[in-house]
Formats: sequence, C-alpha cells, structure tokens
Amino acid sequence: MADNKKLVTEITSMDEDFAKWYTDIVKKADLIDYSSVKGCMIIRPYGYAIWENIQKILDARFKASGVENVYMPMFIPESLLKREKEHVEGFAPEVAWVTHGGDEKLAERLCVRPTSETLFCEHYANIVRSYRDLPKVYNQWCSVVRWEKTTRPFLRSREFLWQEGHTVHRTAKEAEERTVQMLDIYADFFEHDLGMPVIRGQKTDKEKFAGAKATYTVEALMHDGKALQGGTSHNFGDGFARAFGIQFLDSDNTLKYCHETSWGVSTRIIGGIIMTHGDDSGLVLPPAVAPIQAVVIPVQQHKDGVLDAARAIEKTLRDAGIRVKTDDSEQSPGWKFSEYEMKGVPLRIEIGPRDIAEGKCVIVRRDTREKSFVSTEGLANTVKEALTKLTEALYERALRHREERTYEAQSFEELKAIADTKPGYIKAMWCGELECEMKLKEEADVSSRCIPFGIAPIGDTCVCCGRAAKKLVYWGKAY
Amino acid sequence: MADNKKLVTEITSMDEDFAKWYTDIVKKADLIDYSSVKGCMIIRPYGYAIWENIQKILDARFKASGVENVYMPMFIPESLLKREKEHVEGFAPEVAWVTHGGDEKLAERLCVRPTSETLFCEHYANIVRSYRDLPKVYNQWCSVVRWEKTTRPFLRSREFLWQEGHTVHRTAKEAEERTVQMLDIYADFFEHDLGMPVIRGQKTDKEKFAGAKATYTVEALMHDGKALQGGTSHNFGDGFARAFGIQFLDSDNTLKYCHETSWGVSTRIIGGIIMTHGDDSGLVLPPAVAPIQAVVIPVQQHKDGVLDAARAIEKTLRDAGIRVKTDDSEQSPGWKFSEYEMKGVPLRIEIGPRDIAEGKCVIVRRDTREKSFVSTEGLANTVKEALTKLTEALYERALRHREERTYEAQSFEELKAIADTKPGYIKAMWCGELECEMKLKEEADVSSRCIPFGIAPIGDTCVCCGRAAKKLVYWGKAY
Repeated sequence: MADNKKLVTEITSMDEDFAKWYTDIVKKADLIDYSSVKGCMIIRPYGYAIWENIQKILDARFKASGVENVYMPMFIPESLLKREKEHVEGFAPEVAWVTHGGDEKLAERLCVRPTSETLFCEHYANIVRSYRDLPKVYNQWCSVVRWEKTTRPFLRSREFLWQEGHTVHRTAKEAEERTVQMLDIYADFFEHDLGMPVIRGQKTDKEKFAGAKATYTVEALMHDGKALQGGTSHNFGDGFARAFGIQFLDSDNTLKYCHETSWGVSTRIIGGIIMTHGDDSGLVLPPAVAPIQAVVIPVQQHKDGVLDAARAIEKTLRDAGIRVKTDDSEQSPGWKFSEYEMKGVPLRIEIGPRDIAEGKCVIVRRDTREKSFVSTEGLANTVKEALTKLTEALYERALRHREERTYEAQSFEELKAIADTKPGYIKAMWCGELECEMKLKEEADVSSRCIPFGIAPIGDTCVCCGRAAKKLVYWGKAY
Repeated sequence: MADNKKLVTEITSMDEDFAKWYTDIVKKADLIDYSSVKGCMIIRPYGYAIWENIQKILDARFKASGVENVYMPMFIPESLLKREKEHVEGFAPEVAWVTHGGDEKLAERLCVRPTSETLFCEHYANIVRSYRDLPKVYNQWCSVVRWEKTTRPFLRSREFLWQEGHTVHRTAKEAEERTVQMLDIYADFFEHDLGMPVIRGQKTDKEKFAGAKATYTVEALMHDGKALQGGTSHNFGDGFARAFGIQFLDSDNTLKYCHETSWGVSTRIIGGIIMTHGDDSGLVLPPAVAPIQAVVIPVQQHKDGVLDAARAIEKTLRDAGIRVKTDDSEQSPGWKFSEYEMKGVPLRIEIGPRDIAEGKCVIVRRDTREKSFVSTEGLANTVKEALTKLTEALYERALRHREERTYEAQSFEELKAIADTKPGYIKAMWCGELECEMKLKEEADVSSRCIPFGIAPIGDTCVCCGRAAKKLVYWGKAY
C-alpha cells in the first residue's frame, strides 16, 4: 500500500470541503452524536476518553501549582449576574433562563452559568477576611451554557465542558503572576502534550473577557489557516472585588480590595486537535490524550500462535503503562487498518506468522505511515520512544505549517490582499485604536488574535491609519 | 487529655440536636458553604476532595467491569421527557424549566436533567442496530437538578453531583446480571472502603424508580437510627426500549427490544459518612476517601530538628502513597489537635524532641483516640496497617450500632411502639399490598426500606393485616 494513500473513502477530503471533512470525522470516528436537544452534543465514549485524558494531565499540573477543586451551583440569580456591569453586558444576551421550578414560577429568574465569576466572587466575599486567608486558588470542572445561534461539535455548542479557575490574591503582582503561570501551563500542555504550537499573547480591549483588566491567550493555527483560541487567562485587577465587596484586613491593619484572576480551557481543545493533526484518513491523535496509543492487529490470526503472540505484545505494553488494544475481531486486516487510522490511533502493531518466526513485529506510525520492523525484545521501550517521536513530529509539522502561513503586512492594501487569498496569520503593526481594529474586521474580515509576547515589532506605523504604532498584532480569521 | 473528651466546643452535641450537629459539621469542617442560590450548595475544597476520592475509586471499578464514560446534554426537551409515562409522572413535578435562551422564548421548554434515562434511550435508539452492537455499558459523572422544597447539604439539595450508569442489553438475563453486579460494586465500596455496613435488597413497587421493573438498593443506618438509601440499581426490563423504540436485529434475524438498566450514587454518600462515623468532635473520615489520611504535628516545633523530623516523616509517608500533611503553622499543638479532629483526619502523628531522641513518634487514632508510641523505622507500613485497622473498626462499630438498633415486630401495635420509641430498623413480614405499606407509613410513620436479600423470614403473616405474608421487609424512618 502506497504511503499517504487515502484509505477511507467515506469521509470528504479536507481540501475539497474542510468543514464537511471536520463534521465527517467527529461523526465517523465516533466522537459525538447529535440528540434532539438543538445545539448540544452527546460526547461518545471515544470522544469522552480524550477529554478524560486532557483532564487528568491538566488537573495534575493545576494541583502541583497549588490549585484546589470545588463545585459551585450551576444557577446564577439574575441580580447576582448583574452585579458587575461589563460582565453582564457580555454574557446576558446568550444565557439560558430558568423561570419555573416544577409548577411554580420563580420569584427571580436564574440563568444557567455561562461562566462562574459572579458565584466565586460571592463566595470569596464570604470567606476572605484577613491576608492570612489569601490566596485562594480554586478551579472547577463543569459544563457551561451559552445560547449560540450557530453551533458546531466541540467548537461552538450551547453546552460545553470546561474547567474554570478563579483565584483571589493579596497583591496585584501576585494576581499577574498567577495569570501568566496558568497561561504557561496551557501553552506547555498544547505544545508538549498535544504537539500544537501556540502563540502566547494579550487580547486587545475589544477581544478581552467581559470585566477583565487583561486577557492573555494561547492561539493555535488550524490546518485550513484559521486560528483557534486554545485557552485564556484573565487578570481582573480589583474590578470584581470592588463590585462584590471582597476585602481583607492586611498586615498593616488596613482594609484592602483583593486582586483576582480566572482562566479556562474547554472541549474546544478536541476540535483543535482534529483540525491541527487530522488528515484525509481521519483523526491523528497525540499520544498523550489518545484513548488507545497502540493497536495490535494480528495478521493471519487463525494460524497457530498468532493470537497468543498478539496478546503477549498487548500484555507487555499494558504492563509498561501504554494504552493498548488488540483487535482480534473477524474483520480483515485491511478493514482494521482503516478503522484505527480513522480513529487516529498513533501506532499500529502488526504481527503475523513470519514476524513471529523472526522474533519481530511491524510498527506503523499513523502520521507518516512509516513502517519499521522491530524486535519484540524491548518492545515497550521501542513503542514509548516511537510515541515520543510521533508527538515531536506532530509539533514540527504543525510549526512548519504555521510558519509557512504567517505573513507580514505594512499597508492596509497589502493586509487585505493577504487576507483575501492566503489563509493564515498576518503580522502587522497597530496604533491601538478600536477604530482601526474595527476597520480591519469589517473591510478585511480579520480579527486581532493577540498582541504576541516576545516577538519583535516589524515597523513603527499602524497598518491601517499610518499613525504611530504601539503594538505588533497577529491578525487572522478564527473559529 | 482524657480519651473521648469533647475537644471542640463550638459544635452542637449530637445527642442534643442531631440535625444541628450535622449542619455544624458540614460548615465547620469546611465541607460546604451556602450561596444566594436557594437550595444549592457550594462544595468547598475539603468537601470536594472527598468526592474526588469517591469518584476515583468507583470510576476505576466501573471501568474494570466494562463501563465507558460519556457526556449527555444537561437539557431534556419536554416532549422527550414525556415519552415514558411513569417516568414523567415521577419527575415532572420537581424539574427546573428553561423557557428562554437570551432574549428569545423557546419554542419548546427544556428541563434541566433530573436524571438522563430519556437522553440515553434516544441515543441508544440511534446507535443500536444489531446484536453485535450490544451491550452498551455507559456512565456519566455530572450534576442533576430536582426542585426540592426542603433542602439539606449533601442529603437533599436542588442540584447535586452524581454518576448515572445506563446500559442496554441483548437479553433480560444479562440486564438482571448487570443490575446486581452494580449493586454489588456499591455494597462493596460502602462496606470495605467507607466502613459502612449496608443492607442489600429490593424496593417495593411504591418505592421503586419511576419507570423501573425492579429497583435494588443498598441501605445504611445512620447514627441517629434513621436509614439512608446509599445507592440504587434499576432493572428496566424492556419498558423504556418499547417507549423509545430501541430494537436490534438478533442473530436469528428477528427484531427484538433491548433490556436496560440504570444505577447511581451521589454526593449524598458524604452525608452518609458524616452521620455514620462522626462524633461530637467532628468528622471521622474513612481513610479511603479522606483528603488527608495522616497529619503530622510537630511538638515544640521551634526546638532543633523537630521540623526536619516532621518533614522527613511527611516525605516517607507521601512516597509510600499516603495522603499526608504537616501543620507547621504557629497555632498551638492543642489547637491543631482539635482542628484535625474536626476535619476527621484518620491519624495524627505527633513528633517532639523526646520522640526524636528515642527514634519514635506518637500515632493517635481519630476514632478511638488510642495512642501508640511507634518506631519511625518502617513507619509507612505501620501507618498503612493503622489505616486498614481503622477502617475495619469503623465498620465493626457501625455494624454493632445497626445490630443494636434492628428490631422485630409481629403485630402492628408492636411495630408502632418500636417506631415511636426506638430509632432503627424494624424487621416485619408483609403481605405485599400497597394498602398495608400505606398504613404503616401513615399510622406508624415508617417506610419500607427494602425487601432484603438473603435474610430469613421471621413469620408467615403480614404485620399489618394478618393475611399471608409474602416478604420480609426492613422498615424505618429515612433521610
């Protein structure tokens, strides 16, 4: 079989119709199903197992950094949601309202949380008294609801799963450090675990979180050249603390307002993985979150010793902590190859009578389809190394892809010409005015993705108005 | 300090006012906080960590038995909820209704899931075609909402966390086996991990789940002699399958209805732990779910080497997989003793200058306050053994407590006299008629807890009507 041959014919090619390719994959790889609840998705076992792996890795890193998990109510009384002005303006138009409990009309409407800043603030106001009570570094894993008009599985749905961290600090400095620390945890996770390079940067005022002083973001570039906001970390300053009266008695015996942060990532990550690494044969999963890291496929499985050898390999790998499965069903090897390629299993291990005689097996990488004949001696280490290499290769490929699709523009015309014809990031200088940002949005159909950290300016005048530029911005179309 | 001395004076004594004792504990041990959302609770870090431990143990056992996790939408369209008649009658009076998304009135009301049978059934109807697709053994960890009038933290709140398993099978036999298998997993968890003896049995028709053919339960007896339903496992037969059209083509080429089960436990378990093991000094946590299994308290901590010795113990225990914390704060040892007793930490380890000189430390058990002077050599094993013994002792104590509070009644008068004066279980024979069950409820204020498995009858006439008895029933007052 030729490398890169398209094995599975039932999915649309990504070059033909990227959106349809995406939808085909989420359905045919058994990640989700639709239900009669418009705009909500059912996350099926294979999709949910990816989310569980994401949770496990992030939750351990959060806890190592001092995070404690809690659970807040899913409902927010209307009056509580309204306490912080910018926040309610940002969220009220897209919340679901509960008006009745049983047969009874509620005295006050409750919204289903779109995010839980208001609930955490109310709680912090209750429990924080002294500087000795600080910091509180809380997080919750839950689902939230935003009444979106147009929905797509994982990328934008009316209900989605996420984690939301909410912290409260004694000083502005400490809050800023926590904001950056969490952004770094996200960036590291994307790059080292998911093989997804990200740009770290700050959102413009227009794009920042409703009620935040500053929003930091990690932005990833998808295969089609559109950007995806992978995770955000917000520094609230003392804005919410003032709105909710979260004060503490400091060691100098004066009453001060706290400083807060919040930060989150969601099941959107799964959409990002699909659109970064997937190909025309289906999913390609980074080993760190793949429900099955290696699938063992017996060839000529009815011949003496083949199934036993396959199961011995499975046991060796499982004992070494590798997530492994043997498919000994009656389907043909060819069918199985396609099936596990569709499901994005990083490594396929083939074992047949001839391999057994030689004390070897075949390892096939999902991303490149590269085949190696390897000894079954020391197989667990061979497989672990192959998984590490595969993650690195995914990262390198995605990085190259991004570099090839990162452009620079010095004038509005140049920017518009790139935006119209070349999907990707456009680096361009910006004066800092909303007016220019809006013009780029309306006339060139790009939004500011972020003001990147640690990337040198490429000029000193605004790409839009020609006045003095304040910041370099990555512009692009986004999910 | 005398054994069993009441160390913490701020909580109400359990003999004085059991309900207030309970509320004091959940607040003062920092398990929960109230919010402005009526009937909902905030689960604080210490309370949530208990739930995380419960989840971790059960989730691993579920998966070992073939369970796969999924996530279903939190909303159920009114028409979908109404598909199974008994089910909607059971739940409709206590659901929260979403009527608006943003500013728009919804064409159809959505209820916030009180339980998700209807959603799982709809999904199964979509994905099950052939006997090869069976069984599906799914579970989800999520929150559900029931609009209760009277609420109490963990025991009855408008929103609570739980897991709900939903399975679909080829045969009635397989469904029955799964129903029993999950009940056994629950019973084993209660008895071996939580040290809570349970009665396994079947619910009467009056008490069974809305829409089920049979409901099995594990019932635990609380310190005050009231029962708590710890977990339930339901066999639906093919009732839901018929209502939702879940059919499969069997190997004999005929179309058949599936057989289904569902089963769940919730954060109620935490209430059960409190009311089974707690005492007038606060919580007593079973080691399997205790966020801190051992707390190290340095005595005379400013003396040379004390803090180092405490930290060395902490490291030894942590490396052995024990959840351990050292409290080196400036509070007095006495304050710390009370604090960790309030929080139910199973073992306290005291280490001071004299202990260090002798190569020893002091271990104090939370349940009995028994002190041992033990060598710091091999301490990890000593602590592990002490934790195991403590769990066994909790179980034995609770079992004795239950046995002392389990009565038998042969006549209605006898039953009523016991119910009026002696909190606990009353074993009594029953004819099987709803009329008698209702009379016991209305006139003796007891409900049927269950028809126990494997417990011999104690007579042959109904305790209420004197007609032929069909079943032995455990009666009692319940949470």
